[in-house]
Amino acid sequence: MNQMNFRAPSVADVRIVDDFWSPRQVATRMATVPVFYERCREAGILDHIDPDIAVKPRLALNGVHGQTAQRFWDSDVGKLVEMAGYVLVGARDPELEAKIDALVDKLGRMQQPDGYLNSWFTYQEKGKRWTNLRDDHELYSAGHLIEGAVAYFEATGKRKLLDIMCRYVDHIATVFGTGPGQKRGYCGHEEIELALVRLYHVTGKRKHLELARYFIDERGRQPHYFDEEARARDVDPAKYYFGSYEYGQAHIPVREQNKVVGHAVRAMYLYSGMADIAAEYGDLSLKAACDRLWDDLMRKRLYVTGGLGPSARNEGFTSDYDLPNETAYAETCAAVGLVFWANRMLRIDLDRRYGDAMEVALFNGALGGVSLDGSLFYYENPLASRGAHLRWKWHRCPCCPPNIGRLIASLGRYAYGVAADALAVHLYVGSDLRCTLSGTNVRIAQQTRYPWDGAVSIEVEPETPTSFGLHLRIPGWCKAPSLRVNGQQIDLGSVEKGYVRIEREWKKGDRVELDLPMIVERIHAHPDIREDAGRVALKRGPLVYCAEACDNAQPVYAMTLPADASLAPNFDAQLLGGVVTLRAEAMADAVGEASGSLYRFAPPPRQKAELRAIPYYAWGHRAPGAMQVWLRGD
Amino acid sequence: MNQMNFRAPSVADVRIVDDFWSPRQVATRMATVPVFYERCREAGILDHIDPDIAVKPRLALNGVHGQTAQRFWDSDVGKLVEMAGYVLVGARDPELEAKIDALVDKLGRMQQPDGYLNSWFTYQEKGKRWTNLRDDHELYSAGHLIEGAVAYFEATGKRKLLDIMCRYVDHIATVFGTGPGQKRGYCGHEEIELALVRLYHVTGKRKHLELARYFIDERGRQPHYFDEEARARDVDPAKYYFGSYEYGQAHIPVREQNKVVGHAVRAMYLYSGMADIAAEYGDLSLKAACDRLWDDLMRKRLYVTGGLGPSARNEGFTSDYDLPNETAYAETCAAVGLVFWANRMLRIDLDRRYGDAMEVALFNGALGGVSLDGSLFYYENPLASRGAHLRWKWHRCPCCPPNIGRLIASLGRYAYGVAADALAVHLYVGSDLRCTLSGTNVRIAQQTRYPWDGAVSIEVEPETPTSFGLHLRIPGWCKAPSLRVNGQQIDLGSVEKGYVRIEREWKKGDRVELDLPMIVERIHAHPDIREDAGRVALKRGPLVYCAEACDNAQPVYAMTLPADASLAPNFDAQLLGGVVTLRAEAMADAVGEASGSLYRFAPPPRQKAELRAIPYYAWGHRAPGAMQVWLRGD
Repeated sequence: MNQMNFRAPSVADVRIVDDFWSPRQVATRMATVPVFYERCREAGILDHIDPDIAVKPRLALNGVHGQTAQRFWDSDVGKLVEMAGYVLVGARDPELEAKIDALVDKLGRMQQPDGYLNSWFTYQEKGKRWTNLRDDHELYSAGHLIEGAVAYFEATGKRKLLDIMCRYVDHIATVFGTGPGQKRGYCGHEEIELALVRLYHVTGKRKHLELARYFIDERGRQPHYFDEEARARDVDPAKYYFGSYEYGQAHIPVREQNKVVGHAVRAMYLYSGMADIAAEYGDLSLKAACDRLWDDLMRKRLYVTGGLGPSARNEGFTSDYDLPNETAYAETCAAVGLVFWANRMLRIDLDRRYGDAMEVALFNGALGGVSLDGSLFYYENPLASRGAHLRWKWHRCPCCPPNIGRLIASLGRYAYGVAADALAVHLYVGSDLRCTLSGTNVRIAQQTRYPWDGAVSIEVEPETPTSFGLHLRIPGWCKAPSLRVNGQQIDLGSVEKGYVRIEREWKKGDRVELDLPMIVERIHAHPDIREDAGRVALKRGPLVYCAEACDNAQPVYAMTLPADASLAPNFDAQLLGGVVTLRAEAMADAVGEASGSLYRFAPPPRQKAELRAIPYYAWGHRAPGAMQVWLRGD
Repeated sequence: MNQMNFRAPSVADVRIVDDFWSPRQVATRMATVPVFYERCREAGILDHIDPDIAVKPRLALNGVHGQTAQRFWDSDVGKLVEMAGYVLVGARDPELEAKIDALVDKLGRMQQPDGYLNSWFTYQEKGKRWTNLRDDHELYSAGHLIEGAVAYFEATGKRKLLDIMCRYVDHIATVFGTGPGQKRGYCGHEEIELALVRLYHVTGKRKHLELARYFIDERGRQPHYFDEEARARDVDPAKYYFGSYEYGQAHIPVREQNKVVGHAVRAMYLYSGMADIAAEYGDLSLKAACDRLWDDLMRKRLYVTGGLGPSARNEGFTSDYDLPNETAYAETCAAVGLVFWANRMLRIDLDRRYGDAMEVALFNGALGGVSLDGSLFYYENPLASRGAHLRWKWHRCPCCPPNIGRLIASLGRYAYGVAADALAVHLYVGSDLRCTLSGTNVRIAQQTRYPWDGAVSIEVEPETPTSFGLHLRIPGWCKAPSLRVNGQQIDLGSVEKGYVRIEREWKKGDRVELDLPMIVERIHAHPDIREDAGRVALKRGPLVYCAEACDNAQPVYAMTLPADASLAPNFDAQLLGGVVTLRAEAMADAVGEASGSLYRFAPPPRQKAELRAIPYYAWGHRAPGAMQVWLRGD
């Protein structure tokens, strides 16, 4: 185990400045947060935690979605509070704080004398608390409220929700554990594990960490808790809808797992928690399990976009190399979850494979899930569409909007890793970081036009000259990186695991210049991926590209990209908020004949045609039409 | 309108001898008929028409399919009787006849005093007869019982069911029509129209033909009958599940229709009835509508297999060029229906485009729907499968087994067209035909190894020398046909609409030798068919080929057929009842790597690999595995 522990900085310590992500953070503050608040209100989610509203909404958004109250609604309150918290760090906003404070008041009044806090089991199914951990999202909802409490406390200094959640956690710790009379349960939908680690980082209370470890350790043991609680409900465990406890990664103990299986979001949250516990306890067996699972995902079950979980049936994984494009589920939350997991792997193992995957998932599979203006969303993120896959305003399971929103609003956390005497730069993001390294306050000022350009300038400003290591990720996609410190070239020949380490005494005015030239790459899939056979994807830097009907004179499916086609990038400031587009000389089958027989002895005539592609994250903003990531290629 | 009217011969007049279809007819008699009888019995379909069984089966085949009684069950009885009738022509079978006679007895006892005959509205929903023609299949069921009655009468001379059905038709004719007090209705599922024409051919009663014409003429008129009957049931017509009356081709009057739309089987049955009425009445406006619909289907909406109706949602048509392979519905019954329609078009217009389409649908889209032994079935006939599409024994809507069964058992009808002084040969089938031409009894003896070999020998044996025209279809796929009469070469340079006409005085011993050399063709799809872009299909003579996993060392999806690959046919007598297989030198991506990254900068290495293909109709008989008709091709 790497002795260094690169913890994410708090959101308050990183300000994103003049960057690609700046307008996304503005959109989150200006649109995603108010839109999500309003839609939660309309749906009845906010009323559902209100002790003054006696009749709880069982049917809300009437006639539009026929939505009924959901067991996991408290989690949406938690994510709303969390997202709002991050937004408030950058710009306090009394109106938003008043709304959140009102929600916190309601939660406080909803809390039971013993600390229990869950609206479903307080108002809808009183008396059934803790009877179906497998299906009811009870601890999952607690986890999201904990994350909300932590974020809101860090942003505002207000302790009320944090205290409420600490009381609830104390209650949970009495109910669950290996002691006499305790239930040996854990949640069917993982989340509380990583949330408790976050709580521990704020409270410093070891018991919060211990509870997280208990949930990780207990998962999947025999006799199986989900079997026992099912029997206690007089239900046959064999009649579980999803067939196997693989659905919630509870089929075997986590240290024995080596295939990513089941519901993709659950998997990512579990693995994030496992990495956290591995880091906190130096647990090599958990780290080894994480490594095996990581390899399995990366080598057999990940879309080129960083999307994951191809099937709608289980919202998750199927079989190796089963990565269909048009029917890809690839939930936004799952890509967000991969960012969480990768970031936590970087805590314990500074290896660019985690940073590269985090970057791909962030810029493609996750970011594609929210519109540029922050108000419309994708739940599924397919890699091909015939034109009917449109961004929506609301979903009966509204998990994705706040998930991508909280990620964007807290993005600074993912760019850096701070250890005692070392700093890691995982993502190239125009930003100001304040941290303490080797006991000295240090300001790091990063400037870049990333992801459009790979030139990165980092100014290092320690209060007083001080020695520490600066680790910079050299992305795997970059073939000719170069690095200068104060104008002096640094050899990148022997970079360990893709992070170059610059160890020196830093002083004010030191400047690091990293150049990561971006060329357009043709990507080919592993030949066992059936749907990508004979196809290529285009990638430039961290961005995966796609071709949309509205940019192309010929249908994209009819175009072939010859192996020698030149691929020209061009920054278009007017398009989609400013993007680098790609143009290539392709060949197109002559479509759109007025007549002609349906089947012939000769192939269709081909003509030259310009193929235009845009970054995948920006698709679905213009006229609805077909989209493809994987193009026919020679 | 062509003055010649080439009517199909009766089944009794054509014997199939020593032909490709002979073992299929044996399988129909030995397996399909008894299997279907037994499964109808198990499902409760036979009990459902039994007046002695007071409690009608609402749930049958318990636990297997959870099947409940269906409104259209009488139609299955009708198709069972029809199929049995054809089988009995070739070989009377007292045991089978006893079973059918027992069914006829039940039908007779079920018939109401006014002639009405429908088990659903006699036992399940008494009092609701004729209240929902749109959805309830009432006249559809009558149509199949009529077809059954005609076939059983022709086979056995037994009139009982024919008389029952004539009484029922008389009742129907009092209820429906344009006269005072009559309902101006017609069935949501067409079938009775073509059945009444068949009845007319046996009874010679003009009123049977007139009723068929009424149903054709009335369809789709305003005010719309389906609207009115819905309102009479206190149901909002706008809430029709399928949205538009296009589903049953009742959106506009039939003479105004020019797009094949809706449920594919309904469409085929309607167009068959329209062609019949056009032929019987010399109705040019109906013929013109048939021509427009035919062109639309052939140019925009037909699979290369002769399958049709891509969507499971409406069991039918979607939009132009929407012909996905893996999700193709392409119901067996629809391909059978296309054979019916094409055959009726040949009555009125001797044009090989109908004969060619009939042949393709017969040998591929239809024949693929039944296993070689006649006991297992496909409902959907996709053009690609990952290996999970298996032949089944039973289906809650058991329409396909008897449909393909009755087609095979009566195949001789489709091979020939008999006019007053001319004979047309539509299909090359080893067979003996007896007919009357120019007033003389003529025997036609055809010998061929078709579809494996295109050499056809036809002996013409009139009782006395007589003059008539012999029309032979020269298939569109054949590039170098040759023809000899009594050894003398005939020029095929000026063949009209693909049928060569030999007009002469024929005498015993005259021999016609037609040679239709078969070469393996690469077929390319219209470039507007998205899913076939960059792909080729293989065809030899009338047979479309497919590649199955069990014949290929490499996964078929990973193989590419170069444009210059030689395609070698080889007859394998041991395989699948004897088939011509194809072998080609293809290129295969190197699949099955033990490790390796999921996405790379280089394409996978390719190696030479033999691609093997079998006729499409014979797929799904060995180890379950992937199958593809459209192969990647240069």
